[in-house]
Amino acid sequence: MSRTPALTLLTDYGPASEHVGALHAVLATEAPGIERIDLAHDLPAGDVRWAAIVLARLAPLVPGAIHLAVVDPGVGGPRRAAAVALADGGALVGPDNGLLALAAERIGATAAVAIDPGRIGGEVSATFHGRDLFAPVAARLARGDAIADLGAGFDPAELIRPDLPAPATRPRELTATVAGWDRFGNLALLASASELTAAGLRPGLEVRVTAAGRSHPAHVGRTFADVEPGSLLVHIDSHGMVAVAERDGGAAGTMGARAGARVTIAAAPGDG
Amino acid sequence: MSRTPALTLLTDYGPASEHVGALHAVLATEAPGIERIDLAHDLPAGDVRWAAIVLARLAPLVPGAIHLAVVDPGVGGPRRAAAVALADGGALVGPDNGLLALAAERIGATAAVAIDPGRIGGEVSATFHGRDLFAPVAARLARGDAIADLGAGFDPAELIRPDLPAPATRPRELTATVAGWDRFGNLALLASASELTAAGLRPGLEVRVTAAGRSHPAHVGRTFADVEPGSLLVHIDSHGMVAVAERDGGAAGTMGARAGARVTIAAAPGDG
Amino acid sequence: MSRTPALTLLTDYGPASEHVGALHAVLATEAPGIERIDLAHDLPAGDVRWAAIVLARLAPLVPGAIHLAVVDPGVGGPRRAAAVALADGGALVGPDNGLLALAAERIGATAAVAIDPGRIGGEVSATFHGRDLFAPVAARLARGDAIADLGAGFDPAELIRPDLPAPATRPRELTATVAGWDRFGNLALLASASELTAAGLRPGLEVRVTAAGRSHPAHVGRTFADVEPGSLLVHIDSHGMVAVAERDGGAAGTMGARAGARVTIAAAPGDG
Repeated sequence: MSRTPALTLLTDYGPASEHVGALHAVLATEAPGIERIDLAHDLPAGDVRWAAIVLARLAPLVPGAIHLAVVDPGVGGPRRAAAVALADGGALVGPDNGLLALAAERIGATAAVAIDPGRIGGEVSATFHGRDLFAPVAARLARGDAIADLGAGFDPAELIRPDLPAPATRPRELTATVAGWDRFGNLALLASASELTAAGLRPGLEVRVTAAGRSHPAHVGRTFADVEPGSLLVHIDSHGMVAVAERDGGAAGTMGARAGARVTIAAAPGDG
Repeated sequence: MSRTPALTLLTDYGPASEHVGALHAVLATEAPGIERIDLAHDLPAGDVRWAAIVLARLAPLVPGAIHLAVVDPGVGGPRRAAAVALADGGALVGPDNGLLALAAERIGATAAVAIDPGRIGGEVSATFHGRDLFAPVAARLARGDAIADLGAGFDPAELIRPDLPAPATRPRELTATVAGWDRFGNLALLASASELTAAGLRPGLEVRVTAAGRSHPAHVGRTFADVEPGSLLVHIDSHGMVAVAERDGGAAGTMGARAGARVTIAAAPGDG
Repeated sequence: MSRTPALTLLTDYGPASEHVGALHAVLATEAPGIERIDLAHDLPAGDVRWAAIVLARLAPLVPGAIHLAVVDPGVGGPRRAAAVALADGGALVGPDNGLLALAAERIGATAAVAIDPGRIGGEVSATFHGRDLFAPVAARLARGDAIADLGAGFDPAELIRPDLPAPATRPRELTATVAGWDRFGNLALLASASELTAAGLRPGLEVRVTAAGRSHPAHVGRTFADVEPGSLLVHIDSHGMVAVAERDGGAAGTMGARAGARVTIAAAPGDG
């Protein structure tokens, strides 16, 4: 894959909202001729952790791009505005509140700066730094400006990390934190394939999945077709996370799951 | 209209979701410089028939484009992955589960292949063939690769067709299946203008529309302004389908309609 | 900022809906090589006033662009279809129902025409003028066609204006109309910073906000971090409008607000 000169956008502004339109308008005007790619805008409002996970999945697919990412519940407060130079030649631009750290780790970060609004010019509102600060900065970087000109440098290792609680395992049982879910109700947990295997929960097992005080039967498998319509499937999703899906339904709704809640997957009594 | 070198995208992944972002990221990287056009991503999850109808409406508007279409509840199961060469110089790429047949018929298909993942390269996950298989194939075709190199050929007439129940007519009465609806609650039925006319339901008639066991008064007309706010209009929509709309409201909600349900339109007793 | 040769789109068609896809398909085919920018598609169905306000915010960010705007509850009825030449070299295209006037005033309008469908060619459906009339017109203008060739001219000052009720002020009290809100529940009122100040409602005050017959405590401040999570903030939003926000929540939902409702902000007894 070659380096892609491009700008990507990831926010919790809502699909096709005016806030997303404002970012595109600024980028189109201030970085003319640079391709723009919407990575996601339907992220849950203010859920920095899930947004950080999604950014870390998607940013590597567009090597060398400038990634504008804004999930920013602390806008106008003391949180740092950051730009991060990446090992693939691209950069991350957004609030340093946990959003950027996972993508920086995945791709590799070579430098970071705390954006100094005084060096950017233009008026910066108290509540819309996406339009007034981050998009202009991303446009500058896309035009080739040096990241060092944006503000004081800091060690990329000091980027704030989101809270990622580790799973707890017991023999034939895994308890993990809900990271997020998609439109199909596929529920992603903060646990990996190797952690599922280490707990002894191998494909083919019948299990019980417990969330929000209720327990549901499920099958450990590979894809949706492995279970009947309406049945729950525990599987490794296409990003390598342990996930719970419901065939032709929505596991997140069925399980009443909330981001940050703990979910337990345990082998059904008597199952092999 | 000239041939448009472009990639289009149609999915049930949800507007501005990370899954749509992943497709764009793959296409931007693997088919650089090719324009991408989002046709629809808000389609009901897993509703292959309605997606097939929408694809058949929209694909002809971009002649010569490569159309990447993914509504794929059977992903990872035995359904065939297909690429179809079109008479306008373009192609369809997606699961052969009913999604592609109507667009292929509308535009004309000149060849079809069952995509062989082994010829594409890259790892293919069990649950995200859009990112891992269909997008890379669409990118290849956009770059000019030959469809015949993707897998074994089959007769495009063998593409799986969605179930399209015919309407039933009696004098001054039409019963048809709900195909889908839009954001405005405009409910599209599997019936054409000529079928409405053949049933004797002509513009100007007062009718009753029955769905989900409840009956509502409606007027057969041409556009929303033909009825009062809050009143139902039976009309031929901009795609030539019989449709029920509610002025300044949502007919689909008012009628409690579900995809696949039957709706009856009958002349009101005593009306002309 | 330089003139941007571009097409923008703003509708109430719904994010990533097939109707938006149809506009893009027409524009991509009839104005090839012209960049397209989605400004907003999640606008409330048929809410012309809010759409006009959003268009007037966003259109100036892309100077010289052709702005295709369609929020058109009266489609097929007697409302005029209009194209407006702008002082920045761009144009507005859409229904003359209140949608275009505020952007025309903000940017400056130099000419207006009532679009004559007979001069455009192609069949025009009764219910989808976005696809059949407005998008083809916008494509023509983007290709450089003269606005005067589209129909009979009229004075841009005669563009229909949306209803914008003025706020009412009493000492330390402001009553204003709800214009709209965003995904975060930030509620924008038809009142400006100077009107808030004139009412004596200065930053730092504790106030009560009354809507839908219920009253809530709030704080007049600058940004979300000025209040505790779950508390209401009265502030000047990033567009200069008086707004009510709830930190880490949604003020619009909390207040049960509806577009067009009146909201009163009054200094809490004993404060200040």
